[in-house]
Amino acid sequence: MSVVDIARAAKAAFEKSQLIPSSERIDALSEIKRQLESMKDAVLAANAEDLRAAREEVDAGRMSESLLKRLDLGRGDKWDSMLQGISDVANLPDPNGKVTYASELDDELELYRVSCPIGVLLVIFEARPEVVVNIAALAIKSGNAAILKGGKESNATTKLLSQAISAGLAKTSLPETYIQTIQTRAEVSSLLELDQYIDLVIPRGSNSLVRNIQNNTRIPVMGHADGLCHVYLDETADLQKAIRVVVDSKTDYPSACNSTETLIVHESLVTNIWPEVAKALINSKVTLLCDSTTLSAISGLPDVDSYARLAQESDYDTEHLDLVLSVVTVPSLQAAMQFINTHSSHHTDSIVSEFEPSISAFCKGIDSAGTFVNASTRFADGFRYGFGTEVGISTGKIHARGPVGLEGLVVYKYMLRSKADAGHIVGDFGTGKKQYKHTSINVEKVPF
Amino acid sequence: MSVVDIARAAKAAFEKSQLIPSSERIDALSEIKRQLESMKDAVLAANAEDLRAAREEVDAGRMSESLLKRLDLGRGDKWDSMLQGISDVANLPDPNGKVTYASELDDELELYRVSCPIGVLLVIFEARPEVVVNIAALAIKSGNAAILKGGKESNATTKLLSQAISAGLAKTSLPETYIQTIQTRAEVSSLLELDQYIDLVIPRGSNSLVRNIQNNTRIPVMGHADGLCHVYLDETADLQKAIRVVVDSKTDYPSACNSTETLIVHESLVTNIWPEVAKALINSKVTLLCDSTTLSAISGLPDVDSYARLAQESDYDTEHLDLVLSVVTVPSLQAAMQFINTHSSHHTDSIVSEFEPSISAFCKGIDSAGTFVNASTRFADGFRYGFGTEVGISTGKIHARGPVGLEGLVVYKYMLRSKADAGHIVGDFGTGKKQYKHTSINVEKVPF
Repeated sequence: MSVVDIARAAKAAFEKSQLIPSSERIDALSEIKRQLESMKDAVLAANAEDLRAAREEVDAGRMSESLLKRLDLGRGDKWDSMLQGISDVANLPDPNGKVTYASELDDELELYRVSCPIGVLLVIFEARPEVVVNIAALAIKSGNAAILKGGKESNATTKLLSQAISAGLAKTSLPETYIQTIQTRAEVSSLLELDQYIDLVIPRGSNSLVRNIQNNTRIPVMGHADGLCHVYLDETADLQKAIRVVVDSKTDYPSACNSTETLIVHESLVTNIWPEVAKALINSKVTLLCDSTTLSAISGLPDVDSYARLAQESDYDTEHLDLVLSVVTVPSLQAAMQFINTHSSHHTDSIVSEFEPSISAFCKGIDSAGTFVNASTRFADGFRYGFGTEVGISTGKIHARGPVGLEGLVVYKYMLRSKADAGHIVGDFGTGKKQYKHTSINVEKVPF
Repeated sequence: MSVVDIARAAKAAFEKSQLIPSSERIDALSEIKRQLESMKDAVLAANAEDLRAAREEVDAGRMSESLLKRLDLGRGDKWDSMLQGISDVANLPDPNGKVTYASELDDELELYRVSCPIGVLLVIFEARPEVVVNIAALAIKSGNAAILKGGKESNATTKLLSQAISAGLAKTSLPETYIQTIQTRAEVSSLLELDQYIDLVIPRGSNSLVRNIQNNTRIPVMGHADGLCHVYLDETADLQKAIRVVVDSKTDYPSACNSTETLIVHESLVTNIWPEVAKALINSKVTLLCDSTTLSAISGLPDVDSYARLAQESDYDTEHLDLVLSVVTVPSLQAAMQFINTHSSHHTDSIVSEFEPSISAFCKGIDSAGTFVNASTRFADGFRYGFGTEVGISTGKIHARGPVGLEGLVVYKYMLRSKADAGHIVGDFGTGKKQYKHTSINVEKVPF
């Protein structure tokens, strides 16, 4: 199929699916799971093939060991959790058909705002092949058609995974083209032109991937540019909380986007709390890029020469993605907030504080998708938030922010129904004529 | 100020405003209204100046008479309704601070999804100068900073209107740069580059304006591309409803985006209902661009030669914005839905029907911001929906669809609060450790 045919088929599949009961979508997820179970050996064999090719790339120094690890679908409980994820998503409540606003505009004229799917999603991701299955499950459950493009390193694996998805769909009344996969960047480029068929692009990957897509399409893009998260130790920070939250935020999984990259220390803590936090970080093998105040405050610590040095300006705008932490001192909460709003990627920022006014100001004043109190930034995650899984984390400012689950894949439409004998026309309203009532209606589902 | 300074000042104003109580925003609206009242003569004098210049343009054939009319702020009750609009918006409920999801992730670890403003809006509009005041009111009420650019035809008027807005803001603790106006297209072009400061662009104007902006920015754009609305007369359509809904949808205000451009007639109605509808349309001086079936069915009507002719393929993709209506016959509801989903701009489409299954299928299957039953497409409007006023009508598929009021100018953030003695870290959760609770919490406001 040509790229235009793929896009057109996706749109047609979406439109057709709107009249199919949501129970069919749950059935489709069971069928896909069953199909994957029966194809396990073949999928893992294809995965082994991808892994062999990747190993050659690693040996030749063209691929990182960590990328290779992410490719491996047989590792640990990855296969089982992929299948479990399908059931989890199937069991989530239907995000569609919910009335979020209802009003009687006139006698026998009722307006309903009803949640509904967005349409056709184009999802582009790198490396981890199981993302095909995660995203397919979320798209099907939320009623969206999707076109998926995985990393070329996992082509053999994703090909079989998408065969399983198609085979599963074929056992239901949903169109087989509801979920389609494409293989090449050229196809992605062409699809980015087709805003008449594609409603939302979701890139999951490096900053440069996201930027590049944003620069080359009129279609809305939901993704995250960076994960530049902060922890701020407020004047009243408790020592134990400070150590635990900072160490966990930095070291639990340093290459994740919700890991903290910069620690902000209130100047009143520089000589008491900060050295204890620094000691714990150094014990966890974290390299500290400090301003002069925080650096001189820890000059006597063991191993400080190997683990701490003076920061450069650019370190405060760097996503380290490693056991490296920038550190800066501020004179006030206000200065901390200004620092975060300037340097943060609006992902997640946390305050450690015992003082209610600071806590409240921080949560209101920080312009990020997540504002946390005495908790690790690593909690910013769809599974931890209770969304089952996530389609990604958005650092955008519209539609959906933070971890995006099913609710980020729906929007709404307005249904307006007249039950009057003569229907309803606007010409009957105005000065000296009928007036709008705008009486709220309490209803959860559209009654037709 | 340079464009970068303007954008930076807007962002700083937005960030500062987050800590200012919402009562100040209501005060600001009263002050702006008072300021406008005291400046009425000066504003109308400036408006007269714009009108004189516009009159010269009209006389020279470079501007349309209707554009000139839209410029006139002294016409009818325009001035008073502009001021009334400010009070109406001030009196709407605060869209911010609402908890839309709350969950206990663990003992003493609570997650809240809270509505909050988007940030900095860039709003670009044409002609009508009062839009400056409408949008400023919506932005202030919803907690967003805004940069506004009006049409060059109304420069003198909008200059004074924005002085009034600044003077009003100056009497509150909101920054004066909360609402700024710019005058040139070059400034707009530069601002479209500044995605680090501007969070949403809202163009209100022609399709080419909207397209041009979408093609030249990474910033999300909320606007409407076209207003290609349809009315479908279903097999069971009632004659009176059909006539009233079709005539009102087409003739109430033909140049509005919610006017209907295409009538779809079920083939079973071609010889009975359709000729009566056509008669009413011709009486209202509507030119009918028909397919051969509907054209031959009305060949005997009076004046039919002056008002009806064979349609071209392209007429079904044309926003006539005039007393012109394309007409097409379909063999089934399914064909009608396919036709609409293909040709509609996803704005508003209406079915005239007495048959519940058709009504239900239409509302589900039509992929538009508004799906109406026995009601005129002209109801698709922020005021009529009960939103007070609107920032525009969105035909996009994410964030906000249809008429966009205050709720379209807010998004949400996640606040996560630990009250545990040791704070909360993710390292405490996992296999053999703590498990997430994900217990729903029932709360309307964040308790801190």
